[in-house]
Amino acid sequence: MEYETPLFFHVMGYAARADRDVVDMVSGNPDWEPPTALREALHEYADLDSDHFQYPPSEGLRELREEVAARRGVDVEQVVITNGAGEANYLAMARALERDAGEEIILTDPVYPYYPGKTTMLGGTPRFVETAADGQLDPEDVRKVANEQTAAIVVNTPNNPTGAVYPESTVRELVAIAEEYDAIAVIDEVYDHYDLSGTFTSALTVDSDHRIVTNAFSKSMAITGFRVGYAIFPLHLVENAKSRHMLVNVAGSYPSQYAVLQALRETEPAYYEANRDLLRERVDSFTAALEAAGAEYTRPEGSFYVMARFEGYPGTLENVERLIDEAGVAGMPGEAFGTARDDWLRFALVTPRLEEAADRLAAYFE
Amino acid sequence: MEYETPLFFHVMGYAARADRDVVDMVSGNPDWEPPTALREALHEYADLDSDHFQYPPSEGLRELREEVAARRGVDVEQVVITNGAGEANYLAMARALERDAGEEIILTDPVYPYYPGKTTMLGGTPRFVETAADGQLDPEDVRKVANEQTAAIVVNTPNNPTGAVYPESTVRELVAIAEEYDAIAVIDEVYDHYDLSGTFTSALTVDSDHRIVTNAFSKSMAITGFRVGYAIFPLHLVENAKSRHMLVNVAGSYPSQYAVLQALRETEPAYYEANRDLLRERVDSFTAALEAAGAEYTRPEGSFYVMARFEGYPGTLENVERLIDEAGVAGMPGEAFGTARDDWLRFALVTPRLEEAADRLAAYFE
Repeated sequence: MEYETPLFFHVMGYAARADRDVVDMVSGNPDWEPPTALREALHEYADLDSDHFQYPPSEGLRELREEVAARRGVDVEQVVITNGAGEANYLAMARALERDAGEEIILTDPVYPYYPGKTTMLGGTPRFVETAADGQLDPEDVRKVANEQTAAIVVNTPNNPTGAVYPESTVRELVAIAEEYDAIAVIDEVYDHYDLSGTFTSALTVDSDHRIVTNAFSKSMAITGFRVGYAIFPLHLVENAKSRHMLVNVAGSYPSQYAVLQALRETEPAYYEANRDLLRERVDSFTAALEAAGAEYTRPEGSFYVMARFEGYPGTLENVERLIDEAGVAGMPGEAFGTARDDWLRFALVTPRLEEAADRLAAYFE
Repeated sequence: MEYETPLFFHVMGYAARADRDVVDMVSGNPDWEPPTALREALHEYADLDSDHFQYPPSEGLRELREEVAARRGVDVEQVVITNGAGEANYLAMARALERDAGEEIILTDPVYPYYPGKTTMLGGTPRFVETAADGQLDPEDVRKVANEQTAAIVVNTPNNPTGAVYPESTVRELVAIAEEYDAIAVIDEVYDHYDLSGTFTSALTVDSDHRIVTNAFSKSMAITGFRVGYAIFPLHLVENAKSRHMLVNVAGSYPSQYAVLQALRETEPAYYEANRDLLRERVDSFTAALEAAGAEYTRPEGSFYVMARFEGYPGTLENVERLIDEAGVAGMPGEAFGTARDDWLRFALVTPRLEEAADRLAAYFE
């Protein structure tokens, strides 16, 4: 079996090796500062007794699980600390497929490409539901595809790549469909701190034993390289997920979890607000520049991404590499996210050089 | 599907919650100091630019892979940095099972319990080969069980729990059997720095495209909680393993990998020698105390473990918990390692309180 793997690292590597200055708008790596408390915690950790350098509990540091449980209003036993949201989604999807309640996984198109990759690797079959032009998902379209073979419905909100934030009614309906077909709704909320619309509703508000919520500190604390995330499982699904986590990874990274725990405790809301404000300004400035350049584009309600379409320049990997070499701007090809946006390019707003990038794009496409 | 998970964390938790002083001889957590350079590197990391807090390359920091490749004499493209040896073994076994060249995995009895757990989780069938009383594995016994359905032979040397170090002839023969049956020999060498016999031979000395070697810095640097390990694949198997690693974990922990890289570069052989000497002294002192107590025991050639048998006290989980409560010594039940040593208990030499533990055992069993 060979898997389809996401192209992110490939394009990032291509941009890094380019023989010219390139504005990196590929990765989901925030370019803003992590919380001060996180750096302080790492210093503190470095001097701890060496028993703190040994295995943390497999399901994560107890205090971190308690902190997450308290903030999210769930039972601490529901919380598994994972190696980022990536592992959280892997555990959730594996659990859904192993219930012997179907082997189809409903995904959106455009889709975050790790989801179909994980689906295939785990022996499931992806079924795609196309979203509207603004990225919204109509639950009735999901219902049309749902059937007795449905194991899971996997979505993320705020959405990567479309920037859509699903209203409460959509989240509620997706969980209801999962219940109806004895499937699991897996809701990846890793961009929850970057809701620019004020309309984000966590799936945790919909109580159900057919719902798993995944998240991470990667984006909210600007530490994608620390690999600390979590999944919140219904109690009847959590034991098996902990077992798979133990058999795959044994445990997560203690220094990373220690630093995140301290940062979680000590970081004020103002930190998160300032990052949201920065992102809001960047959305304004980049979309204004695209507007001035006459490009078609999406305006995100949340997450880091703007999609743009340039006449006669479809979103292929080849075109993305050409754009790196010839315009000095690196984005992601729309075709990496399925078929629905294969005419588009995705740009991540994780650089201060947005206007420069937009100018380069305007000059290149004029 | 429900998996059989190893009991380590369970027994460690039971001992930690006990209402009395307990000498911990359960875990494989070294109680000696990590390299000084590792602590220094963490301090250094904590003050780096925030772009060092973002995703490292999925397959691991390039410099770390180069350092491993140079030390092990392999091509850097063969090296995948993993979340400890645990993930390295998971990737190796998954790859072996997905080649459509069999679904049986040959394991030893006694066995490191993560191996059968991973086998079942990955849809394989474990086949056990009993080792000799001294823990040595007769390749002819492996050959008797090998067949067209054999996907992999998974062993570790120096061995946990028996302490056996396989001679070069055994390693060579295991790889030959893997080649003969189009299977993969997976050799877990995580205790390679704790060879007390001077006879350890790495499977890397046996060139073969049917051989995967796994390892980690968890034991050699006394940092089981950092989760930095690696697997060395034949080139024709590495791409799929990298893909699975990406789809499961996206990447490993950057602070952990950064600290390990610096420690690997700056730590002198004397550090490793001193830990080996400490372990050698502990083997002498603990086995002498067991001898004085009239117990039957094994004397390890490598790794951290002594197995002991006390008359009328089989190595069940119940007896281990009783020993924690009544004698104040925590070991692992022999039955956790298969059927061949279910009369025995395993004691890890990772505490300075060995003689005290042996005294307690002698008093309890006299």
